Amino acid sequence: MKIDINSDMGEGFGPYSIADDASLMRHISSANVACGYHAGDPVIMDRTIRMAKEHGVDLGAHVSFPDRMGFGRRRIEMSMPELETHVLYQLGALDGLARRAGHRITHMNPHGALGNLASADPDTADAVARAVMDFDPQIAFIVLPSSALEQSATDMGGRCVRLFLADRGYLENGQLAPRGQNGAVIHDPELVVERVLRVIETAEIDTLDGAVIPMPVQSILVHSDTAGAVELATRLNRSIAANGGIITPLSRQE
Amino acid sequence: MKIDINSDMGEGFGPYSIADDASLMRHISSANVACGYHAGDPVIMDRTIRMAKEHGVDLGAHVSFPDRMGFGRRRIEMSMPELETHVLYQLGALDGLARRAGHRITHMNPHGALGNLASADPDTADAVARAVMDFDPQIAFIVLPSSALEQSATDMGGRCVRLFLADRGYLENGQLAPRGQNGAVIHDPELVVERVLRVIETAEIDTLDGAVIPMPVQSILVHSDTAGAVELATRLNRSIAANGGIITPLSRQE
Amino acid sequence: MKIDINSDMGEGFGPYSIADDASLMRHISSANVACGYHAGDPVIMDRTIRMAKEHGVDLGAHVSFPDRMGFGRRRIEMSMPELETHVLYQLGALDGLARRAGHRITHMNPHGALGNLASADPDTADAVARAVMDFDPQIAFIVLPSSALEQSATDMGGRCVRLFLADRGYLENGQLAPRGQNGAVIHDPELVVERVLRVIETAEIDTLDGAVIPMPVQSILVHSDTAGAVELATRLNRSIAANGGIITPLSRQE
Amino acid sequence: MKIDINSDMGEGFGPYSIADDASLMRHISSANVACGYHAGDPVIMDRTIRMAKEHGVDLGAHVSFPDRMGFGRRRIEMSMPELETHVLYQLGALDGLARRAGHRITHMNPHGALGNLASADPDTADAVARAVMDFDPQIAFIVLPSSALEQSATDMGGRCVRLFLADRGYLENGQLAPRGQNGAVIHDPELVVERVLRVIETAEIDTLDGAVIPMPVQSILVHSDTAGAVELATRLNRSIAANGGIITPLSRQE
Repeated sequence: MKIDINSDMGEGFGPYSIADDASLMRHISSANVACGYHAGDPVIMDRTIRMAKEHGVDLGAHVSFPDRMGFGRRRIEMSMPELETHVLYQLGALDGLARRAGHRITHMNPHGALGNLASADPDTADAVARAVMDFDPQIAFIVLPSSALEQSATDMGGRCVRLFLADRGYLENGQLAPRGQNGAVIHDPELVVERVLRVIETAEIDTLDGAVIPMPVQSILVHSDTAGAVELATRLNRSIAANGGIITPLSRQE
Repeated sequence: MKIDINSDMGEGFGPYSIADDASLMRHISSANVACGYHAGDPVIMDRTIRMAKEHGVDLGAHVSFPDRMGFGRRRIEMSMPELETHVLYQLGALDGLARRAGHRITHMNPHGALGNLASADPDTADAVARAVMDFDPQIAFIVLPSSALEQSATDMGGRCVRLFLADRGYLENGQLAPRGQNGAVIHDPELVVERVLRVIETAEIDTLDGAVIPMPVQSILVHSDTAGAVELATRLNRSIAANGGIITPLSRQE
Repeated sequence: MKIDINSDMGEGFGPYSIADDASLMRHISSANVACGYHAGDPVIMDRTIRMAKEHGVDLGAHVSFPDRMGFGRRRIEMSMPELETHVLYQLGALDGLARRAGHRITHMNPHGALGNLASADPDTADAVARAVMDFDPQIAFIVLPSSALEQSATDMGGRCVRLFLADRGYLENGQLAPRGQNGAVIHDPELVVERVLRVIETAEIDTLDGAVIPMPVQSILVHSDTAGAVELATRLNRSIAANGGIITPLSRQE
Repeated sequence: MKIDINSDMGEGFGPYSIADDASLMRHISSANVACGYHAGDPVIMDRTIRMAKEHGVDLGAHVSFPDRMGFGRRRIEMSMPELETHVLYQLGALDGLARRAGHRITHMNPHGALGNLASADPDTADAVARAVMDFDPQIAFIVLPSSALEQSATDMGGRCVRLFLADRGYLENGQLAPRGQNGAVIHDPELVVERVLRVIETAEIDTLDGAVIPMPVQSILVHSDTAGAVELATRLNRSIAANGGIITPLSRQE
């Protein structure tokens, strides 16, 4: 009944911040840290790494296309070898700062448009997975169940960790319901917590179409940049503990 | 009589290139590779690292202030802790790409305005040296004799390698003559070669003021972005060999 | 008894925002809009211009050194001719968007490090003033009394508008007290409002050293990025009106 | 028999240059100047504008997606209103510098990926054309015959100038042959000159499929960044003059 709570961290830039990282860091077990591509800069990365270290939170690389203005939400056309170099650059940069802080990258997940592509497109998934395996094959991949990235990483001998998006509706095929669809996004925090407990206990979830599908996940995503993020994380934390679950960073789940 | 020839490499960006790296790489023993701050991008860094690896050329991190438009020639104001994070980011990023290529960073030197500051200002020198030592204390520092960086690195237990700027006039105190001064820049390649041979054989050099000072150096800089760079490197290479010297990368000089 | 209230606007970037521009815009008469150098991007600039137009708020160019990461707070070394081209680029870019919105740049002021330099250094002041006069000599300069920029702009035949920083203490020589000094920053909004009314009525202000100096100003700055900015602007607005003052954009003060 | 020779200019950035603009400027009649998006910066833009002015060369805005690393060759996803703001920003910025130099933007053409999209996609073409017409409806559009941009600009009452790519093979439908196809790119400068003379005299061209199609063009593109660009421009210049043609900037063709 070990479960990880992860969140995207360090998504400010220069004078800007976007989430209350300091508060959220107390209630999660894994931080996905922006590497200066869609967000983040060395100062913010360093501060985020140190906060994670201090709170016993796992450090992950939240890699992206190079696009600050678009916050990594736009696909940037590039060849697969080019994409690999960009992923390696980001992993290395984060590692450079982590070393000094006495922390270590133990997981990764691609952000925004790169994340969507790596879930759906086998070539992109291969490029991302190859870069990670070349950098450090111990790094776990946080993936959506049945995504292209899960396939690529598994094929290359990588460790995959399945992610549950607690505030999103699922379809019978295990995919997320598209955002337009009724029920695709769940706003009621109580319902979100309920779904998380259900998934932890039963490894199953109800789909929007009324089916029940297996959902064996090890990690739950809390969006850092939405109102109520800290409250939701706090509540999840308590409810999981109250129900006998143990919030556990990915690196200590094995 | 081992001597290293080093040159700044990978200083293009996107569609731009600034030097004939592929040709120059055949005649040098150490490459100082731009890390995406004053120049370079992941694709160019990767290509440069692979070329270096292929030619048995040492890999160095040529770190800089974040300033593409100014090519790292302008001082960018920042606190010393901030500067450290920027140096770590660059070291890590280069290392990320080097790992995959089976190469390794074995030296570093700061570029442009950061290089000037690290030579003259003890605080800047300390920040740069601390970042390097925190990242990997095996990395050698290429320094100007008697510079602040040499002092900082030595104090921290780092290995320093002294650099000879063969095309620059020196003063009696061992400093470079300021560019305005007569004789400060030497354009005749024959004279440059002569000076290098002199320095290798005798570990001494004539200053502009007519004195003879000790100049015990282990590495010679060839500017990559000047006309005749490849020719000069070729000529140096041959002349050194003809005079019994052995071109040797820094990592194999110990 | 006409007085302008101005504020820095459009200082977000991509996904980031830094102030509640939409609320503040209702209570000011002049907006200093970031031009994509220290902050802002075309989408944000466009939105800000349209809001200003809609609320009858004057449009100003808030020009800066090119430095997003440092938010324009760092001096970026460049020659004076180079600086002029950067100021022209920003004025033109803002004008390009203003034209379509049916608005017009009628004032300017330099931001951050460029503002500080233009106040203190005659060469920088000349470069900024020359760029503005070359672009459109009708554009008014918002200046600190007795600053280098006031001198340069006046010498070139430009119109200057004097700014009062209501939350800052002044010295007997008319300069701002340095931030370290006791009383240099005034946090009590009531006191700030009182000082504004005093300045409007008497064109005088008490200095920190106990003297009374003339302070004939036409514009009052409200910092947009501090807590309570909207409240302060609202209160100023009401108090000025209640005391017979008329909030008037700079372009309608002549 | 008036014909314009145009070329892309000012495509350097910071320390980098990509073409011999100073030489080429003597042999062309219109310059398409990069606006700091795919290439160019204020200093380079200013220098290029002044050179154009000095040589009696028309000034055009070579607008692009914001993407220096990709040199504007990658599509950057954005909404049409967003794209419009980016085009206006660039037009304004170039105009800001042109004003001071006593020059004026009299034509425009979109670069790289934006150019391709504006040729093929009516929405993109509309966005680009609307931005230009909003900025200054006197600005002429350099277009490929029968492109979406020609349609949009014409519909909005804009003036279109048809471009002939002298070194590219055409298909019977008037489109460029795709680069893969045999004969799609013509490398022999003699043949290129011949085709230009043919087009000027007869307003017709042979297609790769053996047909003859009408090609009533007013402007010829010389690629600035290919080897032999200056030679080709010189040769074109002489041959056109020798055959009674008159090299005429677009703004003086009406």
